[in-house]
Amino acid sequence: MTDTEAFVRSIQRPTLLVNESICRNNIERMSALAQRSGITFRPHFKTHQSASIGTWFRENGVFSITVSSLTMARYFAGHHWKDITVAFPVNLREINEINTLAEKIQLNLLADHPVVIKTLAGQLKHETGIFIEVDTGSHRTGVNWENTDMIDALLETIGKSGILRFRGFLSHTGNIYSASSKNEIIRLHRTATDRMNFLKERYLGSFPDLILSLGDTPSFSLTDTVRNIDEMRPGNFVFYDLMQQQLGACSYEDIAVAVACPVVASYPERNELVVYGGAIHFSKEHLIQEKQKIYGLAVRFTENKWVPLEPAAPLTALSQEHGILHMDNRQIAAFQPGDLIYILPVHSCLTANLMGKYLTTTGKELDHMNGSYEPFHL
Amino acid sequence: MTDTEAFVRSIQRPTLLVNESICRNNIERMSALAQRSGITFRPHFKTHQSASIGTWFRENGVFSITVSSLTMARYFAGHHWKDITVAFPVNLREINEINTLAEKIQLNLLADHPVVIKTLAGQLKHETGIFIEVDTGSHRTGVNWENTDMIDALLETIGKSGILRFRGFLSHTGNIYSASSKNEIIRLHRTATDRMNFLKERYLGSFPDLILSLGDTPSFSLTDTVRNIDEMRPGNFVFYDLMQQQLGACSYEDIAVAVACPVVASYPERNELVVYGGAIHFSKEHLIQEKQKIYGLAVRFTENKWVPLEPAAPLTALSQEHGILHMDNRQIAAFQPGDLIYILPVHSCLTANLMGKYLTTTGKELDHMNGSYEPFHL
Repeated sequence: MTDTEAFVRSIQRPTLLVNESICRNNIERMSALAQRSGITFRPHFKTHQSASIGTWFRENGVFSITVSSLTMARYFAGHHWKDITVAFPVNLREINEINTLAEKIQLNLLADHPVVIKTLAGQLKHETGIFIEVDTGSHRTGVNWENTDMIDALLETIGKSGILRFRGFLSHTGNIYSASSKNEIIRLHRTATDRMNFLKERYLGSFPDLILSLGDTPSFSLTDTVRNIDEMRPGNFVFYDLMQQQLGACSYEDIAVAVACPVVASYPERNELVVYGGAIHFSKEHLIQEKQKIYGLAVRFTENKWVPLEPAAPLTALSQEHGILHMDNRQIAAFQPGDLIYILPVHSCLTANLMGKYLTTTGKELDHMNGSYEPFHL
Repeated sequence: MTDTEAFVRSIQRPTLLVNESICRNNIERMSALAQRSGITFRPHFKTHQSASIGTWFRENGVFSITVSSLTMARYFAGHHWKDITVAFPVNLREINEINTLAEKIQLNLLADHPVVIKTLAGQLKHETGIFIEVDTGSHRTGVNWENTDMIDALLETIGKSGILRFRGFLSHTGNIYSASSKNEIIRLHRTATDRMNFLKERYLGSFPDLILSLGDTPSFSLTDTVRNIDEMRPGNFVFYDLMQQQLGACSYEDIAVAVACPVVASYPERNELVVYGGAIHFSKEHLIQEKQKIYGLAVRFTENKWVPLEPAAPLTALSQEHGILHMDNRQIAAFQPGDLIYILPVHSCLTANLMGKYLTTTGKELDHMNGSYEPFHL
């Protein structure tokens, strides 16, 4: 019996498995892209939220990271990360936390609102980096890239503050997730970098050190060289998932996580296998495939990769703890209650956030911030 | 400054608030319904997953409960609950956990599969109650109510086991959640009770103590007296939510929870206010209202209830940490970054599961199983 076989036998409940070699390959590939392109790699850690997986990045020469909350910044600061950008609009109610962190590490914040910059200027106690968030087309947050009046005003307040250090312009290209082809992803990425470079040209004279920082996984997964930006912040690539596969950003072989779910019931009369694994494990994020909502996809577990069942067995419904797989009857006959089945998640960030810890496919435990019961020490 | 005002000022991050008086009223109303109907009230605790809120049930004379996992059973057993039904198909991989619990408390399990019953018969060490789950129309799990051949076979194995004690027939009327009117809910509930009574008549001679146990919140919220069943297992009513409100099972005034979210950005040019409060706080459960997906609804916080903003300000998009409220420009002008806004969740079970703890509107902390860092002691 291999280590993996012995470990699999011990699984009792829905368990988030990480294939370490796929995950490390994903990290190496993205690190190499940044290095080859001569730009800074500041990966977004909101996907894995794991100090253990963070060390795999450090082994690839990564020392600057992105997170999406101050809580996450505190967690990683407590695990020896000293250069952290919080890529989420500043929450002024956490000003004390900001001051605590900014004293210990190089903290970079994100703002697009005059009230936020003014309040920070008045209440910060330690020098803090600040990015102006720019909306290059995703329309979630950020100053519209053409609104240079607003950018001028924000830069003036930053300049006068004496405590905020302007780092540059940051954008999240979330609109790429609505793209319907690889070409469209590449086109949207170019549009975003062009818009950011319009700002760089305009402001570089006054701020010769300003950088352009851009984030999203699909566009960096589809290019051999990154041009015209200074820093890249992809996150999801560490695991990938079905959403990225559907976008064309990865293949099934690149997906590093799957949820091992105990089979609890089967209904061949309606082509359904029921597993212990529901909305509190996968999240209710879904994709539309062939006009049907899907929440996951059943795979076989091989030594080196997950292989989708043939014909495809999608997770078509979720209750709080129940997952319902639509499955061919011959496949159903191969499973008994008590067996395990492996399911790829639609959105690995949300699944990892719910599961709160990982096991590698050889049974090694990896932490996740949500499962860390000890307070974070700085 | 009232206690509530002082407490609200201290909120830094997305916080799940419970209005204790609304919640206690919901519990009292449902307890009174069971008492008036002369049936057992075995509330489902998967919604709140809270030992603290559990005590409010105990004050209403509730001593038997329902949960949806063995983990939850262990948690509540560790908080002095001695009679617990796990209303989820038995997961045979947890047989050791089942034996540990069955030694300490009155544990009732749920099965519909011959392999499960046979395996339990062979591996249980202590007498355990068993319900046969019946599918009365929801087609999630359970033996079809007409499949008496299967029920006969299951009962025979149960009878021979010497360790499984047959408790009766249990059904979850999940199909009620697809109903389009109150009348349809009542009609589906009647159909389910009729189908269960067909089984009761057939098997009562052999099992004079068998009970009929039925669960769901909407049908018990819309009736003055429950007829023709022996036990009711509603769960969501403890908090209610927008999904229940849309079904007609409650009014906004009955909703006991809201998420307090810091405002972080505003875009009046596209009628959007952005809050710290995303998919990892609300879950991605949505409703369709006026052809639009909604993930929550902004409310005002008054002493005794939440009142929806006028015009309605729905949460129309969620990222991992961002929530986007669609909002009238005059309303947007009333909020600055750093203010708090209150948002009713679409599905309170999933929101509570993600948040992992509660604060009452006067600042008292209430536990949730997911935030319990100590191991559960039995």
